[in-house]
Amino acid sequence: MNGGDEIPEALSAAELRDIWPIATIADRVEGFKLLRRGEAEDLFLGLAPRDQAPLLLSLPREEQRSWMRLLPPDDAADLVQAAAAVQRGALLDLLDEPTRNEVNALLAYAADAAGGLMNPRYARLRPDMTVDEAISYLRKQARERLETIYYVFVLDDRQRLVGVVSFRELFSATSETRVQEVMRTDVVTVPEHQDQEAVSRLFATTGLLAIPVVDDENHIKGIITVDDIVGVVQQEATEDIQKAGGMEALDAPYLAIAFRRMVRKRAGWLSALFLGEMLTATAMAYFETEIARAVVLALFVPLIISSGGNSGSQASTLVIRAMALGEVRLRDWWRVIRRELAAGLVLGGVLGSIGFLRIVLWQAVSPLYGEHYLLVALTVFGSLIGVVTFGTLAGSLLPFVLRRFGFDPASASAPFVATLVDVTGLVIYFSVASVILRGTLL
Amino acid sequence: MNGGDEIPEALSAAELRDIWPIATIADRVEGFKLLRRGEAEDLFLGLAPRDQAPLLLSLPREEQRSWMRLLPPDDAADLVQAAAAVQRGALLDLLDEPTRNEVNALLAYAADAAGGLMNPRYARLRPDMTVDEAISYLRKQARERLETIYYVFVLDDRQRLVGVVSFRELFSATSETRVQEVMRTDVVTVPEHQDQEAVSRLFATTGLLAIPVVDDENHIKGIITVDDIVGVVQQEATEDIQKAGGMEALDAPYLAIAFRRMVRKRAGWLSALFLGEMLTATAMAYFETEIARAVVLALFVPLIISSGGNSGSQASTLVIRAMALGEVRLRDWWRVIRRELAAGLVLGGVLGSIGFLRIVLWQAVSPLYGEHYLLVALTVFGSLIGVVTFGTLAGSLLPFVLRRFGFDPASASAPFVATLVDVTGLVIYFSVASVILRGTLL
Repeated sequence: MNGGDEIPEALSAAELRDIWPIATIADRVEGFKLLRRGEAEDLFLGLAPRDQAPLLLSLPREEQRSWMRLLPPDDAADLVQAAAAVQRGALLDLLDEPTRNEVNALLAYAADAAGGLMNPRYARLRPDMTVDEAISYLRKQARERLETIYYVFVLDDRQRLVGVVSFRELFSATSETRVQEVMRTDVVTVPEHQDQEAVSRLFATTGLLAIPVVDDENHIKGIITVDDIVGVVQQEATEDIQKAGGMEALDAPYLAIAFRRMVRKRAGWLSALFLGEMLTATAMAYFETEIARAVVLALFVPLIISSGGNSGSQASTLVIRAMALGEVRLRDWWRVIRRELAAGLVLGGVLGSIGFLRIVLWQAVSPLYGEHYLLVALTVFGSLIGVVTFGTLAGSLLPFVLRRFGFDPASASAPFVATLVDVTGLVIYFSVASVILRGTLL
Repeated sequence: MNGGDEIPEALSAAELRDIWPIATIADRVEGFKLLRRGEAEDLFLGLAPRDQAPLLLSLPREEQRSWMRLLPPDDAADLVQAAAAVQRGALLDLLDEPTRNEVNALLAYAADAAGGLMNPRYARLRPDMTVDEAISYLRKQARERLETIYYVFVLDDRQRLVGVVSFRELFSATSETRVQEVMRTDVVTVPEHQDQEAVSRLFATTGLLAIPVVDDENHIKGIITVDDIVGVVQQEATEDIQKAGGMEALDAPYLAIAFRRMVRKRAGWLSALFLGEMLTATAMAYFETEIARAVVLALFVPLIISSGGNSGSQASTLVIRAMALGEVRLRDWWRVIRRELAAGLVLGGVLGSIGFLRIVLWQAVSPLYGEHYLLVALTVFGSLIGVVTFGTLAGSLLPFVLRRFGFDPASASAPFVATLVDVTGLVIYFSVASVILRGTLL
């Protein structure tokens, strides 16, 4: 929707949710106010925190309280964190005191750690209760604002986690069975400071609906439910994709982000790449005499360095993604190098053959490459094998080096790989040329 | 783990799950057989279908049946699809007849459509039941193999979906209330042939645990639960990341995929890029006289074309991801172009200025660029603005063109953008040079 269009009257909730990413803030507020209360609440609860915050703040002050109090503590904490620092105190004041204390406790965690994703309100039982007692107890609790009653956590008298039971298991058990006979004791848990990417992997492999967050002494601090994780997985994926494409994560929808902000993020990344690439001009200057003597060599420079860049980018993308999914670990570096060395030689051979053939065929059609065209073709063939192999090795090794020194492989690989491979590629190319073409063109 | 290492005896289930992606098939089977039955079942149920299939097939035939029958119909269908075609009949024969019929019905859907993700066994109620009747009924059903009892679907006498009620809502209601008074009638549904990426977006925005799949007449065909979606979102993200990095999706863990298969997929992609890039050699040949006359121009060729490539790849990555998340649609093309034109001019100005400065500064240090160095610097400045603007426009427009003609923008953009921008970049560069340097170097 263009900024100039009017929104037709009274969109349904589904329609409003549909156009949400591309509507302006004014349009969103207007559409929101026209919804029936129930639908508006559902829409609000389904928005990302960065959309909830401006929407709530645009409502009249006396209306803000009921919307803020609609949120469970973990979502309220996210909304507070999404708002500007100056507004956070006012937002927290909208909450009742017990909830405000809970939210403050959650705000102490990093937003993208397990503690920052969890909800401290979970259903709990004692191990010695009978199934019937448990079900009646949960029926009363069901009316309270628990995150979920579908997974119930069993705590001992010191509030430590001793087991978990799904509501369904309780429900299918016979009345006099005790909770401790039905519960599972090998509970999948997550430490408080675990990062969200690791948490989402755990959800993906276990298929659980909720996982408790525990401290060092196995006290539950809260639970994370799988619906929170879907949003996390998408967000992490978007960040990784944007990094693979050569830029800092935008963290806002493409058409909604302010122009200046988007350009600033992109300019930073492009400039970093550019500064690195300037070394190629230095490398080329080093071989200026060779180029002047055999201009035909210059014709293949873009082809050589782009092959190095493409193979390096392929290799680093694969390794980075494999690391993110837990398929490859730091100690697997040797196994990866062996694979990539072999792959690089094969791929270099394939591209080198295509390049060789192309020169020979073109020469037959129109003799552009002079009498020594076979030697030129051989130069290109040899250089491509060298460049592609180097590119593959560099591209696959760099994520390991970066991670070893504590950097995020996804952000830092692209500029390093590109520069390294381009500059080295030029050196390989002209060195091979000065050997093969010695005495003839050079 | 290297191929030569032995697995220590009797790994726990958590340890086995941890090393799973990097273990060989033989190691996996051995570790699996040493687990207690309950833990082995949990592990099996948490594996991806492509891992379940070879594991199951490696067990003795008489053991395979109980493992196959452990799976709900939707997961059984996925396992059958993951196996080789020749084995599918044998796998289906392991199932009891009613389940086999269900699975065959599911296999009729594409694996990555809503129908291919759903489970046909869901909990259902009639609208006129009382809450107490409903709870007793569900208590009996809880022992059966329903996907979930936590969302219950209300059907009329013609089996059409009229409402949904969460178990928790039933549980908190008073005993004599009728189901139709508690249920929600505006049910979020998904059509049978909806693709999985759209389904996962729906889960992300609504936060629901399960969504029913319906046909044109609002009969429920089955339900999809959110735990299935987490795996889908990760899989789609991995595919998109690998495409952004310049290759066909691997669809297997990095260290597990056979070397030959990996190289074949990568060689295909690299060769396609290479064939496109060969046009740069043709373009350079066209300007061979200019290069021979002003060799200094050759020094900046890698810098110019890499800037075009980087800005193009940035722009296309952003637009492709925005399309995948539903933030940008085909009809938004004009809005996108205006943004990208402006962004390209700004970014080109930034890079052009850096390039200009570099040449001027280097010349002061060591006069590599001859007496006309200022004109050379101006050439680089002007070319960079042109190349980056063109790259940004081309990179952002191409996904629209591809989608308009029915192609997947993510797969096809990279080779097109790279070739287009490199070749055009060279033409822009040498054309700008022949204007600015006319009469001096050229």
